[in-house]
Amino acid sequence: MSSPTKKARNNPTEEEYFPSIGKIPFKPDAKPGDTLVFKYYNPSTVIMGKTMEEWLRFSVCFWHTFRGVGLDPFGEATIIRPWDDGSQSLSNAKRRIRAAFEFFSKLGLYMNGAATNSNAHVTAYAGAQLKKGLEIAKRLGAENFVFWGGREGYQSLLNADVKSELDHLAAFFKMAVAFKKKIGFKGVFLIEPKPKEPTRHQYDFDAQTVMAFLHNYALYDEFKLNIEPNHTMLAGHPYEHDVVMASIYGMLGSIDANTGSPDLGWDTDQFPMDVRNTTLVMKAVIEQGGIAPGGLNFDAKVRRESTALEDMFIAHIGAMDTFARGLQNASQLITDGILKKALQQRYKSWSSGIGSKIASGEATLEDCESYIKKHGNPTPDSARQEHFESVLNFYV
Amino acid sequence: MSSPTKKARNNPTEEEYFPSIGKIPFKPDAKPGDTLVFKYYNPSTVIMGKTMEEWLRFSVCFWHTFRGVGLDPFGEATIIRPWDDGSQSLSNAKRRIRAAFEFFSKLGLYMNGAATNSNAHVTAYAGAQLKKGLEIAKRLGAENFVFWGGREGYQSLLNADVKSELDHLAAFFKMAVAFKKKIGFKGVFLIEPKPKEPTRHQYDFDAQTVMAFLHNYALYDEFKLNIEPNHTMLAGHPYEHDVVMASIYGMLGSIDANTGSPDLGWDTDQFPMDVRNTTLVMKAVIEQGGIAPGGLNFDAKVRRESTALEDMFIAHIGAMDTFARGLQNASQLITDGILKKALQQRYKSWSSGIGSKIASGEATLEDCESYIKKHGNPTPDSARQEHFESVLNFYV
Amino acid sequence: MSSPTKKARNNPTEEEYFPSIGKIPFKPDAKPGDTLVFKYYNPSTVIMGKTMEEWLRFSVCFWHTFRGVGLDPFGEATIIRPWDDGSQSLSNAKRRIRAAFEFFSKLGLYMNGAATNSNAHVTAYAGAQLKKGLEIAKRLGAENFVFWGGREGYQSLLNADVKSELDHLAAFFKMAVAFKKKIGFKGVFLIEPKPKEPTRHQYDFDAQTVMAFLHNYALYDEFKLNIEPNHTMLAGHPYEHDVVMASIYGMLGSIDANTGSPDLGWDTDQFPMDVRNTTLVMKAVIEQGGIAPGGLNFDAKVRRESTALEDMFIAHIGAMDTFARGLQNASQLITDGILKKALQQRYKSWSSGIGSKIASGEATLEDCESYIKKHGNPTPDSARQEHFESVLNFYV
Amino acid sequence: MSSPTKKARNNPTEEEYFPSIGKIPFKPDAKPGDTLVFKYYNPSTVIMGKTMEEWLRFSVCFWHTFRGVGLDPFGEATIIRPWDDGSQSLSNAKRRIRAAFEFFSKLGLYMNGAATNSNAHVTAYAGAQLKKGLEIAKRLGAENFVFWGGREGYQSLLNADVKSELDHLAAFFKMAVAFKKKIGFKGVFLIEPKPKEPTRHQYDFDAQTVMAFLHNYALYDEFKLNIEPNHTMLAGHPYEHDVVMASIYGMLGSIDANTGSPDLGWDTDQFPMDVRNTTLVMKAVIEQGGIAPGGLNFDAKVRRESTALEDMFIAHIGAMDTFARGLQNASQLITDGILKKALQQRYKSWSSGIGSKIASGEATLEDCESYIKKHGNPTPDSARQEHFESVLNFYV
Repeated sequence: MSSPTKKARNNPTEEEYFPSIGKIPFKPDAKPGDTLVFKYYNPSTVIMGKTMEEWLRFSVCFWHTFRGVGLDPFGEATIIRPWDDGSQSLSNAKRRIRAAFEFFSKLGLYMNGAATNSNAHVTAYAGAQLKKGLEIAKRLGAENFVFWGGREGYQSLLNADVKSELDHLAAFFKMAVAFKKKIGFKGVFLIEPKPKEPTRHQYDFDAQTVMAFLHNYALYDEFKLNIEPNHTMLAGHPYEHDVVMASIYGMLGSIDANTGSPDLGWDTDQFPMDVRNTTLVMKAVIEQGGIAPGGLNFDAKVRRESTALEDMFIAHIGAMDTFARGLQNASQLITDGILKKALQQRYKSWSSGIGSKIASGEATLEDCESYIKKHGNPTPDSARQEHFESVLNFYV
Repeated sequence: MSSPTKKARNNPTEEEYFPSIGKIPFKPDAKPGDTLVFKYYNPSTVIMGKTMEEWLRFSVCFWHTFRGVGLDPFGEATIIRPWDDGSQSLSNAKRRIRAAFEFFSKLGLYMNGAATNSNAHVTAYAGAQLKKGLEIAKRLGAENFVFWGGREGYQSLLNADVKSELDHLAAFFKMAVAFKKKIGFKGVFLIEPKPKEPTRHQYDFDAQTVMAFLHNYALYDEFKLNIEPNHTMLAGHPYEHDVVMASIYGMLGSIDANTGSPDLGWDTDQFPMDVRNTTLVMKAVIEQGGIAPGGLNFDAKVRRESTALEDMFIAHIGAMDTFARGLQNASQLITDGILKKALQQRYKSWSSGIGSKIASGEATLEDCESYIKKHGNPTPDSARQEHFESVLNFYV
Repeated sequence: MSSPTKKARNNPTEEEYFPSIGKIPFKPDAKPGDTLVFKYYNPSTVIMGKTMEEWLRFSVCFWHTFRGVGLDPFGEATIIRPWDDGSQSLSNAKRRIRAAFEFFSKLGLYMNGAATNSNAHVTAYAGAQLKKGLEIAKRLGAENFVFWGGREGYQSLLNADVKSELDHLAAFFKMAVAFKKKIGFKGVFLIEPKPKEPTRHQYDFDAQTVMAFLHNYALYDEFKLNIEPNHTMLAGHPYEHDVVMASIYGMLGSIDANTGSPDLGWDTDQFPMDVRNTTLVMKAVIEQGGIAPGGLNFDAKVRRESTALEDMFIAHIGAMDTFARGLQNASQLITDGILKKALQQRYKSWSSGIGSKIASGEATLEDCESYIKKHGNPTPDSARQEHFESVLNFYV
Repeated sequence: MSSPTKKARNNPTEEEYFPSIGKIPFKPDAKPGDTLVFKYYNPSTVIMGKTMEEWLRFSVCFWHTFRGVGLDPFGEATIIRPWDDGSQSLSNAKRRIRAAFEFFSKLGLYMNGAATNSNAHVTAYAGAQLKKGLEIAKRLGAENFVFWGGREGYQSLLNADVKSELDHLAAFFKMAVAFKKKIGFKGVFLIEPKPKEPTRHQYDFDAQTVMAFLHNYALYDEFKLNIEPNHTMLAGHPYEHDVVMASIYGMLGSIDANTGSPDLGWDTDQFPMDVRNTTLVMKAVIEQGGIAPGGLNFDAKVRRESTALEDMFIAHIGAMDTFARGLQNASQLITDGILKKALQQRYKSWSSGIGSKIASGEATLEDCESYIKKHGNPTPDSARQEHFESVLNFYV
């Protein structure tokens, strides 16, 4: 790829930063080595009554994609971007933004998210910042406002007064809710669970831990969850677990579309490339009728060793196609109804008789005893996991 | 050790099963190789106004200690007990009970727990059993009733209707609560969290997951938690984490005194032998004023390779002494007050001014902004983790 | 499915045990819910000059499939097989064997492996058994002889003399090699690495640990490795890691075709259903020219909850099809050569100049210094991970 | 603590950077809150014929302690040191060195290690640097030269030619060995295993993986290992595992004295504060007669939140005392001989008869068979893990 000229740096409004890359086309018959085209993702294709663009509300992560430089605790920056001179200057910031919008328009994406994080130790300062953030969010018409408790947690139980810290966190959220109502901001408040890293234990460990917290402080109705599957994996769950757990209780507000390596114990924020995973996530999304006003935010970064500019495009394209395939698979799987029928078959005893009576809360332990005395001990039915897996494999 | 004679087997009421072992004495000056004496545990020693026996409400796990035979998925039984002929006969059961009571009295322990588990798939059957269990518990005057959801979870999200299963579990608990009230049973209902194993994901993953569940189904006030640190470790937390999290919300009802190996991913139920761990657990217990009517149940088993009868005694004695040391350490640490003072110092900004206003819920985001405008950005204080660790080391 | 009649039990030579299941057909256009047909696996299809049957040398695991009863440390048997009356009798053993051969012929498989394990603590006894095993293996013309050190490891470093135990293990293997040569047995000796479970640490932790052991005791040329990916995952590696590491050093002798759940810390021995994984494994197998005389042994078991007889078939069929797809994918990927060309491009500096000189061992540190003085500091090339992943996705 | 004056910055040779801290004294009777004194470590105390200073060859990690600023992937520097103006200037570097030597002399330590890492991708450049490093090491009379393969590994097996990379790594080491011999450098070459992070898989995964590598490339006699227990834990082993495995084969050359949190999946490099762990490490060190010319290098850093200058002292003092206690414990444990006697008892069958014959390589499988025919099946002895643990607890 050609480099931007010096002129471009001085005059950011007149130059492209990715001159060799045009708008990414949809080419379903492209060759395997062509990784700069969409093979599956086509915004206007209609799936189950919505376009792909509506189902797959992608957003790019400005933080990783335009600020990431490959730095890690073991070494310095490896990635030098032509629009970035490393300075904290305003002109540098403007160049970054201009490069970002060129990138978005070539992928066909726009930003639809916003993020902040709070710190209870310097709560007043965070409160002042949050106030500003909410005012800006309101002015921009933001639809979502994510709280990721980056360092809300403990490094050691010895030097932490856990109860007080959680009380303060709740007090902080209550101020946010009050201010939101006061200014009439309509966006959804989202909390993003993460189990560990950078702190040893983060208070928002996983979906259900956050739900317990929200209940304990009477905040349950004011928040939804922004689930990041890489965090779910770090919490020791299957990839799609927190998406499902949040969704079944109506708490799934948005998704960070990324992945990790299951053999690693930290957050690698890789681009999701596994069709099985995206199929299972999109199945949950379709089953709850879509993710709007939330979306699929690419909270992912190219590997530190992926230093070429085009790697940024390839990574986003590959992940978007992987989600498009996931959407197609999930749609077909749901339309065919084979898994659903097999599930209904498995649970059919709950729709009548003693099952229905227990489920509805009308039964007593005495009823159970009478039922067993009359009908004897139960016989197990096969749970048929391998059958379900084989059926899924047909769609993946 | 001598073996019980054949006569003992035929006539279980007239023989000892551990003839070579007398009542275990308290000998603080015993030699290191003497592992059949207590070096720290003395029931009548008074610590912070209670006897050791009152603080450390030990109970033996009948399941592991008198039914365990060393069987695992890779091999057959290795442990043959002289009182057990392997049969399902009533006389064999009686011999087991008799051996158990001899064991208890030699250690100076008595049973004070009870356990069951529920299965939503065969809920009616479980309900009938539970009814019986509650009736017996009432008759015995049981103080605790633990629900461990042994197989309450999923092996695969594909073949599980998670929402329905959780609804059914809640319905089951509601029947239990209704029946408990009806018969006037006064024991505490306890749920024991466990994250995985035998199922891939267990619904009672950890303390806070259970709390979310109890909240979601309006059961929060009817249950407390029975925390097992080996399960806490499997959930990816520090050893004492769930004890602390349950305790700060008033939900800590009882503790399963065991441990695992942190490098392993399954439940090994080893006897707790690490004084640092027992110190941290007893610190939480003292801070909440004791664990009664719950206790410290040795849900632990001797290793499959520890085939000698005396290993049963050595394991219990070693663990009891480790808890006695933990109690002494925690008591001294709390009495000296050094850690507490250092904690108060760290959080002192919350007891007045803007901190106190935020904590009490009186502050707004606008107050935060005004405060920062007036006082400027915060400067960080050291969290002093290594100091806290060094202080702890003095007591361990 | 119908149950075998009582007559069948009494007269095992005259009845089928799976009367409702015929020979499994190859039906590439079968519907997703038809999980009792092969959609990909066709023994006679030729791929890269060999038939599927030759590439995919499947074998069934008698242990799991015909002896497994769903027992785990938390509960009793859930699976009752019609040919098995639970007894240790010879007629029961004969019925099991007859059911097994019916199962094999309906799937189109035959046994081609054999397994044993050794125990250094009772080494003489294990030696006597091994002698018998080798004599039988020779008589049957076995092509492989797997040593899985089921309990070769330590539970605690405190009570283990690790050095002596490893010395004894080596002495044991040397007796085996000597006896093999003496009787002229031509089968391949294989060691199967496993990191933990049932012991805390197993000496054969992973592929490279076994290679270190074999080197330390001058046994390297007498053994190959039988890699089980579920064990590889438990050792903290990516699924295909040990297959690759063994293969590049010419040590890959055979593969246990199974998988685990990456979020779990124990060996679940599930049937492999992930096409990405089987693609990567078959890529390594093709690249080394095949796995014969080793094979793909289904060291896997249906879930404890999969209690129906047909689950046994569905699981094997699903996994065989998953491997057939993996073979097809890997074959296409290798034939197209896109990944290989991209790899060669990445490493091209090693085929000439200073790279080639270093690689061949001719260069010195002084040469490196001269080279840098003349050519200056290196500039990094992109490693293009996301491109490689996107290309792979085309084939999966 | 008082801050250094501005004058100090301008004139680094005339000022102390830690004016409020004198030479750390040995005060065995200090109070628990006094964390700026040694309570156990006294350089001149003699233990088993050597002074503490000889057994415990501590060194400080310049990298963590004088360059660490609390930066992590989630946030910027939190730690500002008075001697450091953040610049890359020579005068800043000199101030850092001066502060370091003041720190060393107040702790009573001196640097005795050196470190580098190699990168096979830019091997020529690394070779040129290594040449310089070895020349300097020779001039300084360095006793150890550690190779930590910081990024020697793969992020993805897809884009890595693993075999070539390992071949190149071996070629690189061979150049190092050749140059070392040429210039007559006498220091020990050490490789430091690490399993993962920053790369997904590092080639030097653990002690035995490195041993396999060294064997495969005929480099086994040229290197020893520098074991870091935090890395050992990340590889899925018990804390002291790699120390023991390296030691029993004579490959333990040096130790990085640090620890991690067992519930975390990344390298936290904490100061070791657990006496049980240091006891087990020092037991292995004493059993091999000491660690010289290697040492105990504090490859550890204060927590990012420990921002005070005195935290640096407290952390080192706490860890040194923890090792001093470990040394005392291990010495007493070895002197008493209780564990050793119990071990010998457990393995006594190997010192005569069939055991001794097998161990010495004289036995055949036929001998084993004859022995079993004559003596019958073995009966298991108890492995007595809980007894060993209880004995250890006496010393910890």
